[in-house]
Amino acid sequence: MPITLGQIARLVDGQLHGDANLPITGADILRDARAGEITFAENARLADQLAASQAAAVLTPPEFEPTGIPYITVANVQGAFSRIVAHFRPPLVDRHSGVSPAAVVSPTARLEPNVTVHPLAFIGDDVTIGPRTVIHAGARLMAGCRLGADVVVFPNAVLYEKTVVGDRVLIHAGAVIGAYGFGYSLVDGRHQLGAQLGHVELGDDVEIGACSTVDRGTYGATVVGAGTKVDNLVTIAHNCRIGRHNVLCAQVGIAGSVTTGDYVMMAGQVGIRDHLDIGERAVLGAKAGVMQDVPPGESYVGSPATPLQQQKVIQVAILRLPELKKQLRDLAHTVARLEQSLAPTPPAENA
Amino acid sequence: MPITLGQIARLVDGQLHGDANLPITGADILRDARAGEITFAENARLADQLAASQAAAVLTPPEFEPTGIPYITVANVQGAFSRIVAHFRPPLVDRHSGVSPAAVVSPTARLEPNVTVHPLAFIGDDVTIGPRTVIHAGARLMAGCRLGADVVVFPNAVLYEKTVVGDRVLIHAGAVIGAYGFGYSLVDGRHQLGAQLGHVELGDDVEIGACSTVDRGTYGATVVGAGTKVDNLVTIAHNCRIGRHNVLCAQVGIAGSVTTGDYVMMAGQVGIRDHLDIGERAVLGAKAGVMQDVPPGESYVGSPATPLQQQKVIQVAILRLPELKKQLRDLAHTVARLEQSLAPTPPAENA
Amino acid sequence: MPITLGQIARLVDGQLHGDANLPITGADILRDARAGEITFAENARLADQLAASQAAAVLTPPEFEPTGIPYITVANVQGAFSRIVAHFRPPLVDRHSGVSPAAVVSPTARLEPNVTVHPLAFIGDDVTIGPRTVIHAGARLMAGCRLGADVVVFPNAVLYEKTVVGDRVLIHAGAVIGAYGFGYSLVDGRHQLGAQLGHVELGDDVEIGACSTVDRGTYGATVVGAGTKVDNLVTIAHNCRIGRHNVLCAQVGIAGSVTTGDYVMMAGQVGIRDHLDIGERAVLGAKAGVMQDVPPGESYVGSPATPLQQQKVIQVAILRLPELKKQLRDLAHTVARLEQSLAPTPPAENA
Repeated sequence: MPITLGQIARLVDGQLHGDANLPITGADILRDARAGEITFAENARLADQLAASQAAAVLTPPEFEPTGIPYITVANVQGAFSRIVAHFRPPLVDRHSGVSPAAVVSPTARLEPNVTVHPLAFIGDDVTIGPRTVIHAGARLMAGCRLGADVVVFPNAVLYEKTVVGDRVLIHAGAVIGAYGFGYSLVDGRHQLGAQLGHVELGDDVEIGACSTVDRGTYGATVVGAGTKVDNLVTIAHNCRIGRHNVLCAQVGIAGSVTTGDYVMMAGQVGIRDHLDIGERAVLGAKAGVMQDVPPGESYVGSPATPLQQQKVIQVAILRLPELKKQLRDLAHTVARLEQSLAPTPPAENA
Repeated sequence: MPITLGQIARLVDGQLHGDANLPITGADILRDARAGEITFAENARLADQLAASQAAAVLTPPEFEPTGIPYITVANVQGAFSRIVAHFRPPLVDRHSGVSPAAVVSPTARLEPNVTVHPLAFIGDDVTIGPRTVIHAGARLMAGCRLGADVVVFPNAVLYEKTVVGDRVLIHAGAVIGAYGFGYSLVDGRHQLGAQLGHVELGDDVEIGACSTVDRGTYGATVVGAGTKVDNLVTIAHNCRIGRHNVLCAQVGIAGSVTTGDYVMMAGQVGIRDHLDIGERAVLGAKAGVMQDVPPGESYVGSPATPLQQQKVIQVAILRLPELKKQLRDLAHTVARLEQSLAPTPPAENA
Repeated sequence: MPITLGQIARLVDGQLHGDANLPITGADILRDARAGEITFAENARLADQLAASQAAAVLTPPEFEPTGIPYITVANVQGAFSRIVAHFRPPLVDRHSGVSPAAVVSPTARLEPNVTVHPLAFIGDDVTIGPRTVIHAGARLMAGCRLGADVVVFPNAVLYEKTVVGDRVLIHAGAVIGAYGFGYSLVDGRHQLGAQLGHVELGDDVEIGACSTVDRGTYGATVVGAGTKVDNLVTIAHNCRIGRHNVLCAQVGIAGSVTTGDYVMMAGQVGIRDHLDIGERAVLGAKAGVMQDVPPGESYVGSPATPLQQQKVIQVAILRLPELKKQLRDLAHTVARLEQSLAPTPPAENA
């Protein structure tokens, strides 16, 4: 599906600067674009990288006018580039709809109109599923789950009993929602599992990444607030109440009964101990080991985590530790020399 | 299902202090309890939190007699609270038993009485399954697995060939037992996979969390000892011998051929390098990076991990590093001043 | 299947030193070998451990001649030991081949000769699968996937749309290839998911561990180079280009758009921030938190990670921090004493 640069400018409703008849053979990001392809660059800082690229043309915002390469300016660069990519590699259209005869759906489950259930999915007793929701192959919805509208449950994701899922939620492949909380008491030398009477609630627009886990509450709900996005391999323990519009990057681990405010950001591999409170709009840096409450709006990094400004000073000081040791040693020599220069000739003897 | 406080006291066989006719509409933990609900508080330190709660009544142990709220005292608070929660939200009863016709069970598998196999589960050749064991939807038991009695394998868990599972084991959704060990040798510039002739053995009462992995031994068994509890997203590598009654919190990673004694505790995100020995009742703090053997009974934290007492001193010292630098600078000034005050007027000239 | 030591020597084509009629009842690694069993020891450093073992005989390389125990010498010890283990515990032979009638295979999928599809696997529209490839129970290949020859997809692994897989690739149970990249932009207080038009490409001989995830590219491919081995619970984010013959140990997390050269090694629980470049043959130590590019051939450790030599000095300095504090305090006392010894009797007053 080659196409000319002029046709692309019309496709994205952009302003063309260059030869409208230039043939374009594909679209790729700046790092990967080959000869003949169109790419995009969102700001002038990419000018050098663009000059080194083999790309035949580039999409830019109006404020960046590159030299030496034909370009098209548009207001929303990424949106426009998506349309171009979709021209060259049209997204697959799922030809399937309705409930596959190769799925297993309990007779007591209640599916609203236009639900799609793919082959080999399992829908347990008394499950309810909202309109237009899609359940992919191998997904398991155990008894009593309630799903909203326009939800997508990807292949092999598992929802334990009574999981509650809002509208427009995405649950990626291999995610496990509602497994037992990890709470034990030691009785006669054996770890005895605590109560597992609760469940999980995912708010509207929540996204759960591949192979991430959210454990059920002990007696009530573990909650993930509306709009919160969870990356891959994250674990959220029992009784947590994650706020709205949080962003939890990959491999974050949150222990039991943690609460977070809205718009909290956690970078990759953060760990939070149990029963802490993370304030609204707090930011936790990559690999932070959070051992105390974090006030709203604060940035914490390090392990144990403390405020970012403090850690910056400490990190610089740690890198200079060997130098500090040397300075101390030198100073000790100086002092020893001073002492010696004074000691051998005590005033009494001088007198 | 509203109920009076007096009925609840009888349900849990507790001592009522307050109005027996008070209607109770639900049960929830202290943090989440709403007006009309009953909650629980296990000690007097929660008195302030209880006073701030909207709960209508509270369950306490005999030694904590709260004021300003009706209460019921019982010896086992959590056990009693579980019974109350179960009254308000009765647990689901699985109406299914026996082997689903929508499961795939090899004709050479041998199932003891009262085994339940849910739809779309897969039981391979020569697998044996003990009495009352439950295999949930989508679980895969590859050829030659041997499972004990009263085991539960949750949806989509996978057991590779010849996995041996004791009695009363729980394997949560998405867990993978017996995948290949990660052992390679570099031959002619390519990483060549080592032998994969071993398998995994899980002792009685072991619990494996969601999306956790235990790799098979190279030639023999990777062993998880009886009573050991493993949280979500944990990985135990090939040839490990984990002791009995260990507790491994979420996202712990244990490299190959590690051995641990009994009653070892590992907090979240701990990493242990290969071939180490972790002594009985050792405790590894959150995010510890263990690079050497840990003696029995010791607590190690930090990365690289060292004894807790040492790390406490070090952590304090690190936080005070900027101050230390300043002290050193001040001292250097003082010494310089001293030197100068001595140097310009040597005794000889004074004389 | 007991066997004599002489028969074992012939089986592995080795040189026997000891009683050919000695009966051998099994084979196990040095740590685990019981009386009557044969084990192996690859070098003389294991002599003490061997002397303490109950093993009845041992396999060694020609340069290690142990005393007090019958032994067989062979050039390739591990290879020979594998053959002995296989004698005592013959590997299972999969009796199944062809496409199971209990699998779901799209009519538009194209399978080359000798493909095996196990029960309850799902092969979507337009998928192509190369010769001798094996798809295990519960694996999901979404529409448009292209798999090479001699690939093994283990139970319950998931490949999203259009995943491209080379020859001889192993994808372990629970792995998820091609889920959405974790890229959002904040629009009117909501995190809006970025484009998901790309896919994943796994080169020849790649191995992906259990429950590991590789996210699709935003517009193009996320690439894992030929010969690269990925352990369990690893996550590789969108747009990454991992080089050839890399080794990524368990629980490594790589953020978006990272590139690596060939033969890079990452130990367990390493984290790499987005858009970094890791040079050829670089080595990243366990738990390293990589916040900057790593030059080719360099070893980085720590968090934030810096060169190994620097970190070694720093680690020693940190462990001695309390001592450093004490030295500074002592020196301050000495200086104070010096000051005092000079100050009370100023020359002026003496005069």
